[in-house]
Amino acid sequence: MKKLNETIKKITRINHKIIEVTQLRLDNLTKPLGSLGRLEELAKQIVGITGKHSPDLKNKVIFTLAADHGVTEEGVSAYTKEVTPQMVYNFLRGGAGINVLAKHVGAKVIVVDIGVAEDLKPDSRLTIKKINYGTKNMAKGAAMTREEAVKAIETGIDLFNDELENGIDIVGTGEMGIGNTTAASAITASFTKRPVEEITGRGTGLDDKGLNSKISIIKKSLSVNNPDPTDAIDVLSKVGGFEIGGLAGIILAAAANKVPVVIDGFISGAAALIAYQIEPLVKDYMIAAHCSVETGHKVILGHIGLKPLLDLNLRLGEGTGAALGIGLADAAIKILTGMATFKSAAVSQKG
Amino acid sequence: MKKLNETIKKITRINHKIIEVTQLRLDNLTKPLGSLGRLEELAKQIVGITGKHSPDLKNKVIFTLAADHGVTEEGVSAYTKEVTPQMVYNFLRGGAGINVLAKHVGAKVIVVDIGVAEDLKPDSRLTIKKINYGTKNMAKGAAMTREEAVKAIETGIDLFNDELENGIDIVGTGEMGIGNTTAASAITASFTKRPVEEITGRGTGLDDKGLNSKISIIKKSLSVNNPDPTDAIDVLSKVGGFEIGGLAGIILAAAANKVPVVIDGFISGAAALIAYQIEPLVKDYMIAAHCSVETGHKVILGHIGLKPLLDLNLRLGEGTGAALGIGLADAAIKILTGMATFKSAAVSQKG
Repeated sequence: MKKLNETIKKITRINHKIIEVTQLRLDNLTKPLGSLGRLEELAKQIVGITGKHSPDLKNKVIFTLAADHGVTEEGVSAYTKEVTPQMVYNFLRGGAGINVLAKHVGAKVIVVDIGVAEDLKPDSRLTIKKINYGTKNMAKGAAMTREEAVKAIETGIDLFNDELENGIDIVGTGEMGIGNTTAASAITASFTKRPVEEITGRGTGLDDKGLNSKISIIKKSLSVNNPDPTDAIDVLSKVGGFEIGGLAGIILAAAANKVPVVIDGFISGAAALIAYQIEPLVKDYMIAAHCSVETGHKVILGHIGLKPLLDLNLRLGEGTGAALGIGLADAAIKILTGMATFKSAAVSQKG
Repeated sequence: MKKLNETIKKITRINHKIIEVTQLRLDNLTKPLGSLGRLEELAKQIVGITGKHSPDLKNKVIFTLAADHGVTEEGVSAYTKEVTPQMVYNFLRGGAGINVLAKHVGAKVIVVDIGVAEDLKPDSRLTIKKINYGTKNMAKGAAMTREEAVKAIETGIDLFNDELENGIDIVGTGEMGIGNTTAASAITASFTKRPVEEITGRGTGLDDKGLNSKISIIKKSLSVNNPDPTDAIDVLSKVGGFEIGGLAGIILAAAANKVPVVIDGFISGAAALIAYQIEPLVKDYMIAAHCSVETGHKVILGHIGLKPLLDLNLRLGEGTGAALGIGLADAAIKILTGMATFKSAAVSQKG
């Protein structure tokens, strides 16, 4: 807990003074006041987070954390759990959606085995930080021990801090884990008290029967475990996942180091919820990339108070939406730092 | 009219057969079916437009057409018309929003004087295709002659065809012209029959009094000119603008040459309306980049049947939203052409 507590202690309010200065600067650029809308808001937020008047978003990093979920033995996913390691190999070879979109926006992808159910072939491009061989079946008891939950979060903190030595100017969250929308729905239900039906989706493609069964399994998991919503680590340990804990750690570490963190979809949102319950100040460090097709995601965004940048009917995860969000953040900072002022361009201001 | 008629004649339905093939291809990529949502739809649309299985979006071009509006003498804008040429110089020096965002997505900006009210200093980076020194005041009579309206559209066709020799794989529309939201609202009212109040916004930043006055001027312009909504060229000549006609020509030429055309905001939307009224088949060649703050824009998109990709509260014009839309189109095509298949990556498919 020491590492987690030290990280939490480092998280402060973002710098609102510098945001005011940035507002004046934006208002002097050759465009009608506020006419670049959310790009201007995004630029201000990033300035406020970093405390830098002209942040440089050179080092863009997306963490894609993979882990398995014991609850898959209840048949909650349209895919079998062997797909988790298969997709990890796909990430390493550069063939997945996240590889394509990260490259598109100039971001580095760090692929981590934080709890895949089998030993993966050694590969210099793979970071192995396995907490355990998948979680236990949460429909029958806690998904992991409390110690494992803390370790998952602290592993995320380590991952961030290790990469920080290479430079991280903006970070995106991503994940892969067959069965993890089930965990994300259970976490969302725990904190938001919304009915399970309302916050459970089809994941990778369940039919109606599969969806109803998934809802029953989530209800059962919640009643078997009775997670305590005032204790985020209890929720994570009982109905969470290793990748979700790891991402919560990355989010907390980003805030502690004044780095903007772009939240991907529903599973990343569940990690954001956990980080937010641990330390509400992280909210202002978060940029919600998009609104997922998974219905629980909108509930999470509303609960934390985040407004997504994009609404493109995405539901892939991996960090794909975060990659697109990072592209917009990059555009926003370029606007702030690259445009001429009314004075420098000799353009008349509003009469 | 010959050039316009020949262009219209070249416009055909997009290729739906190749879209079906592309759907199968997308479904074989290592992701749950349809999980990249609108990026997948966008990829299919671009394949259908170009007729190419793997389109290459190397040459990205944004046309930013500048022109003045005689109706500014009625005080319909928060800025004076001297800002039009000042902003053209800003475009040429690379200091405007469109320069920054076009560079961000790797697009070339072609800056055109199609009707600025003064002679601009010669500059190798400026294309001069002036139809006239601004339009006439539409509150007192037609903005331009019918001949000028046709010439504006055909100038857009020429601009597109000239640049096509350098290669255009995707094109974006942009504009600059103090007073042009007034023309765009009048065009929108003509075709959609919606009340002027509903489709008129604050442009570059009018206060309540200015907005009410703008609404009155638009109503007066419509009653003085009585544009015929069954005759798009009549509408353009009576209440349009040279940049709006030019963009309509670019849109028609893009469709005639099977090039996807990314529509920017409200003024570009008015140009899209004119192109659509001339030849409804252009609809499938259009990609609506975003939904502007200007209320008339949503009405235009609904009228044509386009769904915007982004909703970022933009209202700058110049092609800035189109630039961001081109970035997403690029991402969509990279997904189609860059991802591994289930087979090539040895990933198990849905059970």
